[in-house]
Amino acid sequence: MSPWKAAQAGDPVADIDTPALVLDLDAFERNLKRMADALRGRNVRLRAHAKSHKCPEIALRQIALGAVGICCQKVSEAAVFVQAGVTDILISNEIVGAAKIRHLMELAGSARIGVLVDDASQIQALAAAAQASGKSVDVYIEIDVGAHRCGIPPGEEAAHLAELIVSSPLRFAGLQCYHGPAQHLRTPQERTAAIRDAAELALWTKKIIEAHGIPVEIIAGAGTGTFLLERDSGVYNELQCGSYVFMDRDYGENTRGPDDIPFEHALFVLTSVMSRTTGERAIVDAGLKASSVDSGMPLVWKRSDLKYLKASDEHGVIATPSPASVELGEKLMLIPGHCDPTVNLYDSLVCVRDGRVEALWPIAARGALL
Amino acid sequence: MSPWKAAQAGDPVADIDTPALVLDLDAFERNLKRMADALRGRNVRLRAHAKSHKCPEIALRQIALGAVGICCQKVSEAAVFVQAGVTDILISNEIVGAAKIRHLMELAGSARIGVLVDDASQIQALAAAAQASGKSVDVYIEIDVGAHRCGIPPGEEAAHLAELIVSSPLRFAGLQCYHGPAQHLRTPQERTAAIRDAAELALWTKKIIEAHGIPVEIIAGAGTGTFLLERDSGVYNELQCGSYVFMDRDYGENTRGPDDIPFEHALFVLTSVMSRTTGERAIVDAGLKASSVDSGMPLVWKRSDLKYLKASDEHGVIATPSPASVELGEKLMLIPGHCDPTVNLYDSLVCVRDGRVEALWPIAARGALL
Repeated sequence: MSPWKAAQAGDPVADIDTPALVLDLDAFERNLKRMADALRGRNVRLRAHAKSHKCPEIALRQIALGAVGICCQKVSEAAVFVQAGVTDILISNEIVGAAKIRHLMELAGSARIGVLVDDASQIQALAAAAQASGKSVDVYIEIDVGAHRCGIPPGEEAAHLAELIVSSPLRFAGLQCYHGPAQHLRTPQERTAAIRDAAELALWTKKIIEAHGIPVEIIAGAGTGTFLLERDSGVYNELQCGSYVFMDRDYGENTRGPDDIPFEHALFVLTSVMSRTTGERAIVDAGLKASSVDSGMPLVWKRSDLKYLKASDEHGVIATPSPASVELGEKLMLIPGHCDPTVNLYDSLVCVRDGRVEALWPIAARGALL
Repeated sequence: MSPWKAAQAGDPVADIDTPALVLDLDAFERNLKRMADALRGRNVRLRAHAKSHKCPEIALRQIALGAVGICCQKVSEAAVFVQAGVTDILISNEIVGAAKIRHLMELAGSARIGVLVDDASQIQALAAAAQASGKSVDVYIEIDVGAHRCGIPPGEEAAHLAELIVSSPLRFAGLQCYHGPAQHLRTPQERTAAIRDAAELALWTKKIIEAHGIPVEIIAGAGTGTFLLERDSGVYNELQCGSYVFMDRDYGENTRGPDDIPFEHALFVLTSVMSRTTGERAIVDAGLKASSVDSGMPLVWKRSDLKYLKASDEHGVIATPSPASVELGEKLMLIPGHCDPTVNLYDSLVCVRDGRVEALWPIAARGALL
């Protein structure tokens, strides 16, 4: 990593070195509050997804505003958050492999830890580790409600897995019914239809398991794109939104329904124009190492005259309408195409307010792959 | 980052936790030797590009085998390599901004440092910093020989910049004439034509500058895809190949000409099958956080029956021909689509030989963005 940082607390925003990952604290705090307001007094709880931010400072603020805990995706991510004082973590992913399960059980000695399963062999491995360690974890069965990634199909098979769990030292917590692709369906109508179907499948599966005499306490899922639908479904009772804290270009392209919450862009890649040899293009110092392009190119913030065309490792090419439109050395703010893998490229968030750097927050779970 | 590592020296390869970035040391060493052999006795020198590996252990091996030094892209990367003992570094990029130039001049006190320019204002800023610090740097003028990114057009303008450099405390080193897109032109004919044009433009510009009485010592450029062409051009005398140490899927798709060197894939993402709920797909634990997809999906190594279809943050979806083709928990080796941004996702390389982990090499310049 860089031997020096892009900024330090107290610096004027104009002095931040580039590229840097900048958090607009006012917008971020408004986003946190909007989410808390949207869930207050409802029969659902928030388990904020930390894969979006990988930052304990943010997780602790989400919990302070009412989140029951966090989700993350990896055992090693969970370890970072446990170390930072988070006491209730769902690893919303299947865990396979002896080393991972050993670390998982160690964490279960310090925090409430949950994990997903979609195969009997995973339950057997977890149960054996629980037996051997004297510790236990919450186990959620992942149901494929439309994402077609992990998860068993809705229906009877879930009851079989639930029976395996309840007859082991593990705790059966409920069903993970996250519909990832629905988050980015562009129209409210498409999102509504997808989550209506997902909720029906979740409820049907829940009833099948309960018909076997096994209560299903939690139906978990939802993301920033659809969470009002899960909130109002009468089926889901734990929501796993993550990106709402930042918002990225991809989420910004969803058409909002009349009730959808206007979360703001709070996360930016600050970049400098480092080459300007023609009137038609400006080269900036933020490329693939500064902004993930898996969901498309970043957007240049508040500069609709500029279009970020393509990225190479260390450069971005921006189309410019005229020689006068940007200057060599000028700084621009980019909205990343996709916040999660972009955050994973940085070691710290440069948090700004009122034209000053207020703090640097370590992205402590960056690169926690295991 | 993860509080624990994927492996330690001495572990059997079968015990490496996933996802992990694995270096096949035998293949890597053969690649290093092939490059040294290809340049021995020729009138060109290698300045290996460290942006591909970001790893001092590798840079020092390249130098031990004859490289004059390294290239990197950022001042903070250069600082990491200077700290590791590299004494001759070209930052093959334009440097803009007071903080960067301050750090650059500090480094110039400990190593020979070069940098590119493509604008008079950059020269003025560097010259002022050299004047103030009593240190100097090598300055290369970047010429756009076909990449259409940074660099001035070939021709007279370069002589103007060269005159500015020689009348300052800076050292004029030569011309940077790298043709990036040519590296991935798929046929030898296309690559030959592109580098023939680039060499002509470089030579023409050199002659113009020399007509002003300013000697042009170095013409630098080349990458893994074209370096034999630059080597044999009679124009280029410093080559900046990087990816040859690893080879990635994208380079593997170039059609080799009869003389092209058969560099081997030496870099792999080791991944585990973590979900296997249908016969048609296996979900692996290596997604966007484990393998950059900017140049397309990774390839499953030596498993032509398996196709990596798509990546999300923590998951890869692999199409499988039948339920028996892969098992839950099975480990697969992926060849990343693009090595440079993939390496940037990891904190260490797990170096293997003869079925054992031989060493972990820190990717010390990972995330060095400034």
